[in-house]
Amino acid sequence: MRPSGRQPDQARDIKITRNYTKHAEGSVLIEFGDTKVICTATVESGVPRFLKGSDQGWITAEYGMLPRSTGSRMHREAARGKQGGRTVEIQRLIGRSLRAAVDLNALGDFSITIDCDVIQADGGTRTASITGGCVALADALNTMVKNGQLKASPLKQMVAAISVGVFEDTPVLDLDYPEDSQAETDMNVVMTDKGGFIEVQGTAEGDAFSQEQFDAMLSLARKGLNELFTLQQAALNDAE
Amino acid sequence: MRPSGRQPDQARDIKITRNYTKHAEGSVLIEFGDTKVICTATVESGVPRFLKGSDQGWITAEYGMLPRSTGSRMHREAARGKQGGRTVEIQRLIGRSLRAAVDLNALGDFSITIDCDVIQADGGTRTASITGGCVALADALNTMVKNGQLKASPLKQMVAAISVGVFEDTPVLDLDYPEDSQAETDMNVVMTDKGGFIEVQGTAEGDAFSQEQFDAMLSLARKGLNELFTLQQAALNDAE
Amino acid sequence: MRPSGRQPDQARDIKITRNYTKHAEGSVLIEFGDTKVICTATVESGVPRFLKGSDQGWITAEYGMLPRSTGSRMHREAARGKQGGRTVEIQRLIGRSLRAAVDLNALGDFSITIDCDVIQADGGTRTASITGGCVALADALNTMVKNGQLKASPLKQMVAAISVGVFEDTPVLDLDYPEDSQAETDMNVVMTDKGGFIEVQGTAEGDAFSQEQFDAMLSLARKGLNELFTLQQAALNDAE
Amino acid sequence: MRPSGRQPDQARDIKITRNYTKHAEGSVLIEFGDTKVICTATVESGVPRFLKGSDQGWITAEYGMLPRSTGSRMHREAARGKQGGRTVEIQRLIGRSLRAAVDLNALGDFSITIDCDVIQADGGTRTASITGGCVALADALNTMVKNGQLKASPLKQMVAAISVGVFEDTPVLDLDYPEDSQAETDMNVVMTDKGGFIEVQGTAEGDAFSQEQFDAMLSLARKGLNELFTLQQAALNDAE
Amino acid sequence: MRPSGRQPDQARDIKITRNYTKHAEGSVLIEFGDTKVICTATVESGVPRFLKGSDQGWITAEYGMLPRSTGSRMHREAARGKQGGRTVEIQRLIGRSLRAAVDLNALGDFSITIDCDVIQADGGTRTASITGGCVALADALNTMVKNGQLKASPLKQMVAAISVGVFEDTPVLDLDYPEDSQAETDMNVVMTDKGGFIEVQGTAEGDAFSQEQFDAMLSLARKGLNELFTLQQAALNDAE
Amino acid sequence: MRPSGRQPDQARDIKITRNYTKHAEGSVLIEFGDTKVICTATVESGVPRFLKGSDQGWITAEYGMLPRSTGSRMHREAARGKQGGRTVEIQRLIGRSLRAAVDLNALGDFSITIDCDVIQADGGTRTASITGGCVALADALNTMVKNGQLKASPLKQMVAAISVGVFEDTPVLDLDYPEDSQAETDMNVVMTDKGGFIEVQGTAEGDAFSQEQFDAMLSLARKGLNELFTLQQAALNDAE
Repeated sequence: MRPSGRQPDQARDIKITRNYTKHAEGSVLIEFGDTKVICTATVESGVPRFLKGSDQGWITAEYGMLPRSTGSRMHREAARGKQGGRTVEIQRLIGRSLRAAVDLNALGDFSITIDCDVIQADGGTRTASITGGCVALADALNTMVKNGQLKASPLKQMVAAISVGVFEDTPVLDLDYPEDSQAETDMNVVMTDKGGFIEVQGTAEGDAFSQEQFDAMLSLARKGLNELFTLQQAALNDAE
Repeated sequence: MRPSGRQPDQARDIKITRNYTKHAEGSVLIEFGDTKVICTATVESGVPRFLKGSDQGWITAEYGMLPRSTGSRMHREAARGKQGGRTVEIQRLIGRSLRAAVDLNALGDFSITIDCDVIQADGGTRTASITGGCVALADALNTMVKNGQLKASPLKQMVAAISVGVFEDTPVLDLDYPEDSQAETDMNVVMTDKGGFIEVQGTAEGDAFSQEQFDAMLSLARKGLNELFTLQQAALNDAE
Repeated sequence: MRPSGRQPDQARDIKITRNYTKHAEGSVLIEFGDTKVICTATVESGVPRFLKGSDQGWITAEYGMLPRSTGSRMHREAARGKQGGRTVEIQRLIGRSLRAAVDLNALGDFSITIDCDVIQADGGTRTASITGGCVALADALNTMVKNGQLKASPLKQMVAAISVGVFEDTPVLDLDYPEDSQAETDMNVVMTDKGGFIEVQGTAEGDAFSQEQFDAMLSLARKGLNELFTLQQAALNDAE
Repeated sequence: MRPSGRQPDQARDIKITRNYTKHAEGSVLIEFGDTKVICTATVESGVPRFLKGSDQGWITAEYGMLPRSTGSRMHREAARGKQGGRTVEIQRLIGRSLRAAVDLNALGDFSITIDCDVIQADGGTRTASITGGCVALADALNTMVKNGQLKASPLKQMVAAISVGVFEDTPVLDLDYPEDSQAETDMNVVMTDKGGFIEVQGTAEGDAFSQEQFDAMLSLARKGLNELFTLQQAALNDAE
Repeated sequence: MRPSGRQPDQARDIKITRNYTKHAEGSVLIEFGDTKVICTATVESGVPRFLKGSDQGWITAEYGMLPRSTGSRMHREAARGKQGGRTVEIQRLIGRSLRAAVDLNALGDFSITIDCDVIQADGGTRTASITGGCVALADALNTMVKNGQLKASPLKQMVAAISVGVFEDTPVLDLDYPEDSQAETDMNVVMTDKGGFIEVQGTAEGDAFSQEQFDAMLSLARKGLNELFTLQQAALNDAE
Repeated sequence: MRPSGRQPDQARDIKITRNYTKHAEGSVLIEFGDTKVICTATVESGVPRFLKGSDQGWITAEYGMLPRSTGSRMHREAARGKQGGRTVEIQRLIGRSLRAAVDLNALGDFSITIDCDVIQADGGTRTASITGGCVALADALNTMVKNGQLKASPLKQMVAAISVGVFEDTPVLDLDYPEDSQAETDMNVVMTDKGGFIEVQGTAEGDAFSQEQFDAMLSLARKGLNELFTLQQAALNDAE
């Protein structure tokens, strides 16, 4: 029934490649099937102005898509002189989600920027960005410990995200683009590996969704997220 | 326990004033306690380029805050030359929510813009905007019927929104600013008067939230939304 | 002869409501007939860079119109990323006019921003903004005295503004939109309650105007402005 | 008493050079003493969108200053990505003033843009722009007649502008920069060679000004403008 | 002597991977050592406005760097709202160079956009972009033939680019970042596989360079470019 | 054979007028035939942020064209809110070229901005800007010595630029607009009066160019530049 032939509760093949590029303190290529996102974590001294004098660090995110990461070419946002509303919405979500992974007070006078750049898109770029971005973030924090910038990593918990939705009246896990563009309901769920919710964003694209559908989707999301936490951990356990 | 002395399941006083300004096809002042938003609905012929040739109308929303609607003055976005990320996120949410109220195919070759301008802010401006915006939208559609632009109103259902959250470990309804700025979790729930969900956005500001807290918040939201649907209907039933 | 039935030397009903919103140091709703403008005065420490080290404070103004304050919807300037030329021209006029009301040296190291936001437009928004803005400014200065930021109010004089024009060959006072859009000549006059001119801006929209017409318009403006000074004073005398 | 040693009613040496650059349909260098402005008039087919279908042409103006036309270097507006408020205000004034010179209905489906670029500034750049711009406009209209684009020039009258002010309590004509930066009152007067007013903009920079000062300034302006009309005519009478 | 241990006339290892991403009509990953650039070619119907009515197609290029493709993070141009001067300069060079490869008249009413996005930078990103971009372009033209959009590929010749420079008084081929940042002279040479020059851009970063140095650099460039043409051809000969 | 009747190795009449405007520390009008550019040099204390703490000064350039300096009117870049790609490319070239003329360490904590504004264009505006800009720069440095800001001028050498190209198969010197718009190859050459190259930018507009054509163009450029160095010196030797 699903265009890809997957079972309703089956995520795509997910692959996490650490140290994908050489300059960043953390650099990850994450693949959710044909969706491919480069996530880098950059450590910089100092915090944004609104945090000056507070005793906490900061984590923020920026998101972009290569113009031809998609089926038809999108305008390059740099050339247009403006990030679109969707971009802004997504990068704010990534930033909020990843801040939940870290004890910002223990981070001290540092800022970390997570750049998530989509090189190929097939649905689920924001959830891939959060999931891969958290691995890049963990790497960057470990790099800071090795460099003597921090005594211990302030990582409190891992964070991951997955999409669920209602496609042809069936709740399904990890929508790809053909499903996403036709789903009646689309929901992104961000959780911690301790089982708490960080962010739940459910949207009816067509008809409203019911409490039952909501519960079924949340249950699928939990299942998928547990798989993601395992994959993140396996990646981090690899010798570099 | 709540700074305002309200019960956990008690919303603020909510007031809907129709025909608040004279030019718009629908014009509503909505007040959630000290939060005051002017919502106008403007009808224009034609649809945006991406809908040309499809047989459907369009509904979109724009959101703004007067610079001194808040405790300390914000920059005027027009003067900065850019809408902030929060503004963009909110106006996209309002637009999506209100499109769910209308049969866009029956709207025909028309666009309706809902402008939500906050003249005084005390928390919950986006939920007030959706709730008031839907009344302005209903009025505009009725105006179109009176003008002969439409044979019947394409309104399918009313849509309203309310915030819920976890404040000092207790789930509460309709957060005001003092609560919102300290809540551990904040969730905006948009429903239809037929009982379906349109949008659920829950965010952990501090610690993650649990399934139990989630369920308690949704239950509070349902209660509050039922009150809002009653108020919307009462307002629409008033002779103009 | 006038579309509204008013006498040539008759202004519209003018109403000044103080403390209209709760956050600002001064907040006024001013109504010139159907023209309604919210004027807030915000006090902030420090002065703009070009005044650093001088011993004077600063007063500036920003102006905006809600998109549907007018008969057909205007673009939202924040969304366009740019304030229009008319907006810039008007806010510079408001700022210059209100600076004339205050002894800037006595204001010290403070800046006051007057935000004038039109919620309903029917002609004369700039003159309403100046007239209402001066009341908000007076309130803000009094608030500063109460707060101990200033020993005495540095207000030197009240400032008000009104439009005059030549409509169907007759000089008239306080043009509303139907008149304004057809007037041959339009003039805005800003004076102090001591009888001096602060700004006179007369523009021939069609044919040039003569010295006689000019003198007649100035005479009408003086009459109207005297009424405005009385209304400002009455408003300020009200217990808050 | 005046820094330049001029009499109160004495304008600076004014020089008008036609055909200053070779590409434009009208091209004038105008000098008011050390103030030097290049005014070009460009004819293009078609009218702006808001005039489509009306039967009238359009005249507009743009204004700029070379970055080092002034005593200390100004930012280049193109590099900043924004025209400043003063620039916008001035170019709107030039456009309004020059439209008064022409029968727009007789201009037909053409637009004329007057570019006024200040290459050296010493006060009075906007009045020089209007005065020189009207000569460039007259030339462009004559070029159109020669080219067969128009049967007769739709020029109704010449327009010129001069500044007057109160400097050290004395009304003076044609302020240069040292006067302009200290004047209590500054007024720009735009008239037609038939004796009517097009625009009067008087501004109190310090204390308010009185009716007597106003009348004295207007009288000086009339005198200066008569000289300008003579100079414009002499320039236009020169063989090219 | 070279930081990398290479001979003066030795280029880095160069690798061309076709079909790197799945959506674009041509998609290439090109690696010059640690410099990695994704080049995609997008075919769209129609031509830019300035070519409407001419009988020729168009080829243009856009260039970007991921923010952390470099040793320290650069601002994201989309977030700044502006492409930097270096970006603009590079993408204009890429576009001019690739237009030389194609018979634009034979391309007909199509535009091709070459997007060059640097995912890791180590010097020579513009020469890698041109060299890889030409392969993506060739692929896109072949795709058009397969799709029936063109009868035959309008590719006239292959184009490639390489940098040369003077490093510690010695002319060297294909500078990497450590060399580039210290070179006295840097020159980019774009040629066709038929042996003609398309673009030569030599810049003295420190002292001026002599005719002899110039000739030595050009000779090195010819050698390096011959190797590149062989690599391009080998890549294009691979079965897809 | 050349549209102007010039010999292939004949530059246009070149004229350098110093002290063209009165405010700048250096101000030159340079004319290459009908191409006329005002070059001013402005001295300011301090250096850009990226040089803070280094012990060197800075020289930068900005370039602009009056909208009607050309045959048909160009958009005013300030009004568009953006400098075009060509403008950015040219001003970067001017800045790089003129920095080569000066010992930046000896310049100390000062920045010099060279503004090059084209008032009439007929080809070769960038080479005229560099050639005239260097004279303005030399004047500004001498002004600094006179003012006591520097003990000695840090000018190391004069810099000039000229264009060469291949027009109807013949290498020609100093292309004017009719030639430039048809030339197969266009090359700008920047040299020092000591005989070294600063920048060479050759571009094939149509077919590729050969080594022989390249050599012939460079030889023409040397001849033309020797004439320019003589003219620069003669201008600087004039009593002011």
